[in-house]
Amino acid sequence: RITNKVLFFPSEVACVEHIFSPTLPHSHVCSLPHGVDTSFSRLLRYILSACYSLDLCLFSFSNMDLSRAVLLLHSRGVTIRVLTDKVYSAISGSQIGVLRKAGICVRCDASAVHMHHKFAVVDGRMLITGSLNWTLTAVQSNMENIIITEEPDLVQPFVKEFCRLWGLNDPA
Amino acid sequence: RITNKVLFFPSEVACVEHIFSPTLPHSHVCSLPHGVDTSFSRLLRYILSACYSLDLCLFSFSNMDLSRAVLLLHSRGVTIRVLTDKVYSAISGSQIGVLRKAGICVRCDASAVHMHHKFAVVDGRMLITGSLNWTLTAVQSNMENIIITEEPDLVQPFVKEFCRLWGLNDPA
Ligand SMILES: [Zn+2]
Ligand SMILES: [Zn+2]
Repeated sequence: RITNKVLFFPSEVACVEHIFSPTLPHSHVCSLPHGVDTSFSRLLRYILSACYSLDLCLFSFSNMDLSRAVLLLHSRGVTIRVLTDKVYSAISGSQIGVLRKAGICVRCDASAVHMHHKFAVVDGRMLITGSLNWTLTAVQSNMENIIITEEPDLVQPFVKEFCRLWGLNDPA
Repeated sequence: RITNKVLFFPSEVACVEHIFSPTLPHSHVCSLPHGVDTSFSRLLRYILSACYSLDLCLFSFSNMDLSRAVLLLHSRGVTIRVLTDKVYSAISGSQIGVLRKAGICVRCDASAVHMHHKFAVVDGRMLITGSLNWTLTAVQSNMENIIITEEPDLVQPFVKEFCRLWGLNDPA
């Protein structure tokens, strides 16, 4: 059976260290709640499930845990492509510069209009999309939604649109 | 087979009069292209397919064609509920006051955080959701996406979340 899930935000705030370091002892020094599954921890797990590729098309990207997840996938050899809005890539707290420095391929949409998407495609197979910008405010404060689906009729148009936008913004 | 469709924006600009008035002669005075199916005309048709109910959970709502579609459904006896963000409901160009004056039931989320959703549920059966705010800029300028799905695993959580938020914002 294919995945069709919905996550709502704001997410409860809880420690996500065990997602990045599964062998981490529960006794580490940290004041956040532990052992709690939240919308945000589920989102991180879906992203970290990437084995081959992760395509990100994001209006804004400042959330440090999401950045950490992308960097971890990059270190595992997963092919990452990041397409983002030019204006928002330069604002304070943006993680776009960090990803670039790590060697991740980033393209900024420089058209006069906003690239307002907030979607990710995992392994060309699973779509993560919704209202949620990849910021701390969106995750912890706003009322937001995210859909995770493997339904081909929904995933394939996003795969195709990502390729189109990626090609349009080829800096070469 | 259940509906699973994706629409991307910006939409081409084309006349949508025939959607509101199917008997309209093509000779009406208008400088826009005619007979063109666009992302926006498709979105209007999905919304206008409502027979019984339309639940809207929208951060911002200033698009006059979308407002016209909602008013048309209201005049047909479709039960409309609109949940919107308090701050954005009061900005210039917002259609929220127009809907209220027409007798449509509107509730504003007054919490300190943003109600950033942009989803609609048609007849409790079809979900319309994505990055697209119901504004003119979003439709005609931004790069945006909308999913239309009847997949129960995706629709039902949104139906439930709408009811929860609607109850939370009961003014009584
Ligand atoms: Zn901890
Ligand atoms: Zn016309």
